[in-house]
Amino acid sequence: MSKMPQITTLDDLRQILSDLPGPDVEAARAAQAREPQLTKPQGSLGRLEQLAAWTAAWQGRYPPRMDTPNAHVFAGNHGVVKQGVSAFPSEVTKQMVANFENGGAAINQMCEAMGVGLCVESMDLDNPVQDFTENPAMTDTECAEAIQFGMNVVDAASDVVCLGEMGIGNTTASSAICYALYGGNAITWSGPGTGLDKPGIGKKAEVITIGIKNYKGLMHDGLDALRCYGGREMAAIAGAVIGARLKQVPVLLDGFVSTTAAAVLQSVNKRALDHCKVGHVSQEPGHKMLLDKLGKNPLLDQNMRLGECTGAVLAVSLLKAAVACHNGMATFAEAGVSDKEG
Amino acid sequence: MSKMPQITTLDDLRQILSDLPGPDVEAARAAQAREPQLTKPQGSLGRLEQLAAWTAAWQGRYPPRMDTPNAHVFAGNHGVVKQGVSAFPSEVTKQMVANFENGGAAINQMCEAMGVGLCVESMDLDNPVQDFTENPAMTDTECAEAIQFGMNVVDAASDVVCLGEMGIGNTTASSAICYALYGGNAITWSGPGTGLDKPGIGKKAEVITIGIKNYKGLMHDGLDALRCYGGREMAAIAGAVIGARLKQVPVLLDGFVSTTAAAVLQSVNKRALDHCKVGHVSQEPGHKMLLDKLGKNPLLDQNMRLGECTGAVLAVSLLKAAVACHNGMATFAEAGVSDKEG
Repeated sequence: MSKMPQITTLDDLRQILSDLPGPDVEAARAAQAREPQLTKPQGSLGRLEQLAAWTAAWQGRYPPRMDTPNAHVFAGNHGVVKQGVSAFPSEVTKQMVANFENGGAAINQMCEAMGVGLCVESMDLDNPVQDFTENPAMTDTECAEAIQFGMNVVDAASDVVCLGEMGIGNTTASSAICYALYGGNAITWSGPGTGLDKPGIGKKAEVITIGIKNYKGLMHDGLDALRCYGGREMAAIAGAVIGARLKQVPVLLDGFVSTTAAAVLQSVNKRALDHCKVGHVSQEPGHKMLLDKLGKNPLLDQNMRLGECTGAVLAVSLLKAAVACHNGMATFAEAGVSDKEG
Repeated sequence: MSKMPQITTLDDLRQILSDLPGPDVEAARAAQAREPQLTKPQGSLGRLEQLAAWTAAWQGRYPPRMDTPNAHVFAGNHGVVKQGVSAFPSEVTKQMVANFENGGAAINQMCEAMGVGLCVESMDLDNPVQDFTENPAMTDTECAEAIQFGMNVVDAASDVVCLGEMGIGNTTASSAICYALYGGNAITWSGPGTGLDKPGIGKKAEVITIGIKNYKGLMHDGLDALRCYGGREMAAIAGAVIGARLKQVPVLLDGFVSTTAAAVLQSVNKRALDHCKVGHVSQEPGHKMLLDKLGKNPLLDQNMRLGECTGAVLAVSLLKAAVACHNGMATFAEAGVSDKEG
C-alpha cells in the first residue's frame, strides 16, 4: 500500500484507528510450524523465537526479512521550554540536528554499528509549538499536518522502522500527556530528562499541573492530549506508527517520548500498537510506568536515557538475530541430528 | 604476549592465577576523560559508557576497538550421560558439531548476523570424560591438557572473545560444580538443560548427589571441582578465560555451563573474572543463582537457554555500539552544541 489516507483533522485519524489491519495469521502460522523443526531444544532461543514470528506476522510475509531496517528521528521544539523545564536551551534541538547531519551524534554511530539506515526530519524548528501553560501546543490542523508527515515518511520497503526523537522540552510534553491519559500525579510522571536536579523536576511538575488544569474540558482521548501538550515530532511519530501499520512495516519504539507518542493511539484503539515493540526501557522514570500501562515488555535494559532513537536501533540486533536464526538454521532432518529422546 | 605458559598440572594454573595482570588504568582513565565531552547528556548512554571504558581497560589500549570479535565453541562429551541425565543422547554432541561445521546451527546464523568470527573445537568426542558417579571425570593431566588447549586457542588479535560450548550432559556437570563450590542443595542447582521434565530433574539431582559424596575429600578449590565433575570443553573454557587475560582480550561468557567453567577460576582468585562480562542470563535456573554468587550483572535477558555461545555473541552488538559511540561521537566543542545550561 503506497497511497496513504489524507489526515487533515484529528477526526480523520480517529476514523483510520477505528479500522486497522491485523496481523498476517498465515505468516505467523508458517513461522510457528518451522520453529520446532530447527536444530535446538524447543523454546531455547526464548524471546527470539517469538520475535521471528511477530516480524513475519506484521510484515505480512513468510519468511520474514531483516535486511533493510530504517530509523527515523523527528525533531521539534517546544514553547514550554521558556518556563524553565529543561537543563538545555531550545537551540540545542537545531544544533543536534546539525550534529546528526554531520554524523557526530550517538545515533549516527549506533546506526552504523547496527547496519540501520537513518533519516532525520526537522519539524519547523524555528517555530516551536505553543507553550501549553498559555495555549494548546498545536491547533487541530497543525497536529494533523505533523501526523500526515510522519505517516508518509515511512518507506514501505523498510523491514522495520525505529522511531525516535530530538526535542528540548519534550519529556515535559510526554509527562503531561501520560498524566492526562493515565492520571496519578504530575511529580511521579516527571523525571530529570536531559539532567534536571530535584528542584528542577519539582518546577517541571508544577508547569505540567498548570497545563493539565487548562485543558481538562478538552480531553476526550489521547489525540487531544497529543494536540494540547505534544510537539510536532511526537505527532509525526504517532503518524509514522500508523503509516507503518498500513504499509506492513513492524515498528521499534525508542524511549519515553516515542512511547508516549505511540500511547495516544492505544488510547483510541487498544490494538493500535500490536505491530510495535519497545526497543528498551529508559532510565527516565515515566517510561517504566508507561510500559506497565501499555502492557509492553521492552527488549533491552541498558540504563540508557538519551533518546535520538538509540535504544530502538540497538534492539535491531535482536530482530536481525531472530530472523537470521529462524530462516537460516537447519532442521533436525536436514542436519541428521537426533531429535529429543531420539 | 604470544607465548603462553605451560600447564601440565592444575598446580601450574594455580600458580598463574596467583599473579594475574590487572586492567590498564591509563586506558580506562582516557575513556573516562572523553566520555563527558561527547554530545549527549552525561550518563545518558548508561551501561554502554561503562562497557567502552571496560573494553579499553582490558584491551590495554586507547581508543578501544571492536572490529574483530571472535567466538569459540568447545564441544565435549560426558560419561555421566549413561546415568540418564539428558533429554538428548550423547551422539548429538558430534552431530551438532557437524551442524556447526555445515553452517546450520543457531550459532552460525548468530555469528553471521552479528559479524563475529566462529571457531569450533571438538575435544576428543569419542572419548567422553569418565562418569563422575564412578570416577573423577578427568585426571589432573587430562584436565590440564584441556586447559592448555583453551589457553592457546585464543587469538591475541581478537577484540573480544565469546566463550561457549556444546556437550550433552554438561548442565549436569555444571550443577555438580556449582553445588561443590557454593553448597545449597543438588535439586536447586539442577535444571531442565535441553528439556528434562520434573522427574528427570529429580534423577539428575540424585546423580549429582552421588558425585558430590564421592569426592568430598578432594575438593580444595574450584579446579578440583572442574576436574572431578567437568568436561574437557569446560576446562578449555577456563583455559581460554586465562589465555584471554594474558593476551589482553576481554571476554564475553555465554550461559550456565560457560559461566560455571569460569567460576572455578574465581574460587581461586577473586579478581580472575574482572576481564569477563556475562553476555546474557539463561533460563537454566542455576545461571541466575551463579551470577548472584559471582556478582555479575548479565548484559541481556531474552529467555534463551541454548548454549553454543549464542547469548554471548548476541551481546557483541552492545560492545560494538558502545565502542562506536565512544570513539565516533563528536564532542560539544567539535559540534558547536551548547553544553548543559550553556
